[in-house]
This record gives sequence, structure tokens and C-alpha cells, in this order.
Amino acid sequence: MEKTVQMYEGKAKKVFATNDENYCIVSYKDDATAFNGLKKGTILGKGAINNRVTNHLMKLLEKNGIPTHFVEELSDRETVVKKVTIVPLEVIVRNIAAGSLAKRLGLAEGTKMKSTVLEYCYKDDELGDPMINEYHILAMEFATKEEIDLIAKYSFKINEILSNYLKDANIELIDFKLEFGKTADGQIVLADEISPDTCRFWDTVTGEKLDKDRFRRDLGNVEDAYQEVLKRLMGE
Amino acid sequence: MEKTVQMYEGKAKKVFATNDENYCIVSYKDDATAFNGLKKGTILGKGAINNRVTNHLMKLLEKNGIPTHFVEELSDRETVVKKVTIVPLEVIVRNIAAGSLAKRLGLAEGTKMKSTVLEYCYKDDELGDPMINEYHILAMEFATKEEIDLIAKYSFKINEILSNYLKDANIELIDFKLEFGKTADGQIVLADEISPDTCRFWDTVTGEKLDKDRFRRDLGNVEDAYQEVLKRLMGE
Ligand SMILES: Nc1ncnc2c1ncn2[C@@H]1O[C@H](COP(=O)(O)OP(=O)(O)OP(=O)(O)O)[C@@H](O)[C@H]1O
Ligand SMILES: Nc1ncnc2c1ncn2[C@@H]1O[C@H](COP(=O)(O)OP(=O)(O)OP(=O)(O)O)[C@@H](O)[C@H]1O
Ligand SMILES: [Mg+2]
Ligand SMILES: [Mg+2]
Repeated sequence: MEKTVQMYEGKAKKVFATNDENYCIVSYKDDATAFNGLKKGTILGKGAINNRVTNHLMKLLEKNGIPTHFVEELSDRETVVKKVTIVPLEVIVRNIAAGSLAKRLGLAEGTKMKSTVLEYCYKDDELGDPMINEYHILAMEFATKEEIDLIAKYSFKINEILSNYLKDANIELIDFKLEFGKTADGQIVLADEISPDTCRFWDTVTGEKLDKDRFRRDLGNVEDAYQEVLKRLMGE
Repeated sequence: MEKTVQMYEGKAKKVFATNDENYCIVSYKDDATAFNGLKKGTILGKGAINNRVTNHLMKLLEKNGIPTHFVEELSDRETVVKKVTIVPLEVIVRNIAAGSLAKRLGLAEGTKMKSTVLEYCYKDDELGDPMINEYHILAMEFATKEEIDLIAKYSFKINEILSNYLKDANIELIDFKLEFGKTADGQIVLADEISPDTCRFWDTVTGEKLDKDRFRRDLGNVEDAYQEVLKRLMGE
């Protein structure tokens, strides 16, 4: 598989076309942004860590029945994935109140939710990725009812698989963001990444944050936290 | 039925206990507020109009199979209603994009939605009545799954009944806010009010706004608009 033209440069990754139109190559960057791009920085080594962590977790999910875009890791930072049309939603799964949910509902960070919360945000930087619900999704035709139901089903199952898996690495899965896409033949698959950029990981014993909140909130030891996640998951 | 102590004074109504614990008396005020209380004013005659419009529409809904809190109109401003425990949700039903939905999704005001949109906001003034979804409602135990399903079913049916009815009065029902409550015996009923304070009413021909947006946006002729709605619905 050969990279051809760059299709897209996002805040955390570049996406390249390949000589096969059904595939693309993602290349993970060390750039970090927060608060809808207002805060910018670099987390040294992040790209390589997020690439490897994402692929490790995508493989775990595939083994457990979740279709994903993952095809093959090419190098430290680069991975071949199925080219999909991204469903323009960020699907957020929440087990414990943190971040915007804590603020929205006036809950202390760390409050366990009585049941898992799913949220949908419309992926639109100009509008600030506004939170929407299923009725907005249907009225705006961002997805069909069948697609939303499948996306919700996958999201709950992914939460179960990842929460259990991470527990063994002494990581509590607080919340995370997913993106889904549609392949050329219409199949809904998990796309994008699953990494300390897109999840809240808290040490199960100390509660220490092992994720991008260290960058967002200037908590220090940002690189160490990313490194620690890689080590706990892959023994390195 | 006799008023006893005042239970609550809200922005638009007072609620009194009565000598029968299953009922209360609401008294509609001329006070108007907008933007979560930031803008304050008076709309002369509003209380009497909203009382009469609400009761007229509640009776129409009852006749069409929707259980409501309405019991008996006592006077220009006062009505006996079943005392309920309010489900802490504002249920917003939207046919045409306006207000916060137009802003959230970047739609021009007046854009027809391809399907009816329901939104839920958590009734909490301090938090600014944040928008939430069904998963938040379940996790926070604001309502059970059965209650949400019933509330959604009623809301869509109310939309159908009111939209059709208002069309004959040359009024287009753009969007509206509902509150539901639970009676002592656990029944979910429509509560609160349905008035130019809680609906967007546009003249079907001219598009003229006949609702609280005239106050919110300083469009003038506020009293006239409320009066016009009363006249179109009740011939006065
Ligand atoms: N398999 C895939 N096929 C096509 N596009 C993908 C695939 N997986 C992820 N993407 C998209 O590639 C881009 C990855 O770049 P990055 O994550 O840096 O974007 P971003 O800055 O977060 O911006 P965006 O708001 O578009 O996500 C995203 O737009 C993502 O939705
Ligand atoms: N049948 C009922 N039984 C008990 N309370 C009711 C009933 N119908 C409406 N209410 C409540 O009575 C209050 C009416 O007052 P008003 O509409 O002025 O309140 P508000 O200023 O809008 O504040 P809120 O945020 O509480 O609605 C509301 O809190 C409403 O939920
Ligand atoms: Mg991204
Ligand atoms: Mg009110």
C-alpha cells in the first residue's frame, strides 16, 4: 500500500489516499489542541503512542465482534485503515461524570452515573461541535434510525469490552469519544482513534489522570502519562 | 375550592395550595422574563390571556385523548388544576427551526425540519436549563424509560392536535415547550401552560410573530400580539 495525495490534515492526524481507493493511511501527529482549537501545543511522542494504542484496542474490539476500520499498522505513526465516509457525529460514552457533563449537570467530577450515558455531538468545528440528540440526527439526516441504533449498540458494547480490559491494567475508563464511518459497501464500522487524546483514563487506585486532561488543565507530566498508558497496555 | 397558602411564585405564575390536597390554583401574572431571567418586563393583560388560551387548548387536548392537569377556570387569571409533581424537564417540540435550535445547527430561522424534533432540558435555573438527552434522564433518574416514552408519545400527539387546530386560525405552530407532572396516583399528565409565552406562533400568511419573541427581541406591539392570539382562538 502506497500513500498518494494527502486528503485531510486534522488537528491530530493526517489522512492520505492510497493506490487502492478503498483504503487510506492515517499518520498520527504530536500536535495537541484543546477547547475547540483555542489551546495548542505539542506532546512529544504522542503520535506514535496514539497510533499503537488505537491499533491495539481496535484489534481487541474486532476480536470481540465490533467491526472497525483497522487494517494494518505500517510504522510507528502510520496505519492503513478502510476508507469510510465519517458519520458526522462524535459519540461520547460516559461512565463517570467529568468535563462538560459534570458542568452541565452540576455534578462533582468523579460521580458515578447510575447508568451509562451516550451523547451525540454534531461534528462541525464552526458550530463548536454542538450536542444534539437522536431527533436532530434524524431531522438533519446525519444518520438513519437503523444506523443510530447500531451505533448506540456498538458504543455500549465497546464500553463494556474496553472497561473490562482496562480494569486489568489498573485504568478506569471514565468516558471516551468514538467516531463511526460507512464503508463503500454501506457497512457501519468504528473509525478514527481510541487513545489518551479521546478517552479519560484514571488510575483505578490513585485516581491519577492518564490522558489529555493533563494537557488541557496544565497538570504537568503529560508525556509520562501517555507513555504510562502504552506501558500498561502493551508492556512497554 | 379555596386558595390557602402560596406554594410557589414563579416568573409567570403563582401557585396556591387549596383546601383539597389534590388540587392547586394557578394565578397568571403579567410579568415577563427572557434569557433565563436577565430581561424583565410587563406585558399588560398577558396573565388573563395566557390563562384563557392555556385552558382553551388544554380542553381541546383532553377531548383528543391527552390527560392534562386542567380542572376548572375560576376567573380571568385563576384556574384550578390537579396538583402534580413536575417531571423536572422542559420538553421542546420543534417543527420549524427558530431560536436556540437555529443557532445550534446553523440553520436559518424558518427552515422546516424534515421530521419533528423533541428536545429535553433539565429544569434547573442555576444550571440554565441545560439540554440533555434520554440517557441523562435515565442516569439522573429524572424519569423512568416508561415515563419518557409516554411523554414523547404525548408530545408528538399534542403537536399534531395543536398544529392542525391552529392552522384553522391562520397560525403556524413553529415550536413549543411542555411540562408534564405526576398526579398522586402516579399518572403522567400535561401540566403548566400552553400560551404565547411558551410557543412560537407565526401568522401562516405574513409570517408575523404572535408570541413572546416580540418581547424577547423588542419587536413592539407585544400586547397586540397576545390579544390577537386570544381573538383568533376564541373569537374575542
Ligand atoms: N477510516 C477513515 N476514513 C476516512 N476518514 C477518517 C477515518 N478515520 C478517521 N477519519 C477522519 O480523519 C480525520 C482525522 O484527523 P483528526 O483526528 O486530526 O481530525 P480533527 O482535527 O479531530 O478534526 P475533525 O473535527 O474532522 O475530527 C477526522 O476528520 C476523522 O473523522
Ligand atoms: N399542576 C401543577 N402542579 C404543581 N406545579 C405546577 C403545576 N403546573 C405547573 N406547575 C409549576 O408551577 C410553576 C409555575 O410558575 P412559573 O411558570 O411562573 O414558573 P417559572 O418561573 O417558569 O419557573 P420554573 O423554572 O419553576 O418553571 C412552575 O414551576 C411549574 O412547573
Ligand atoms: Mg479528531
Ligand atoms: Mg414556567
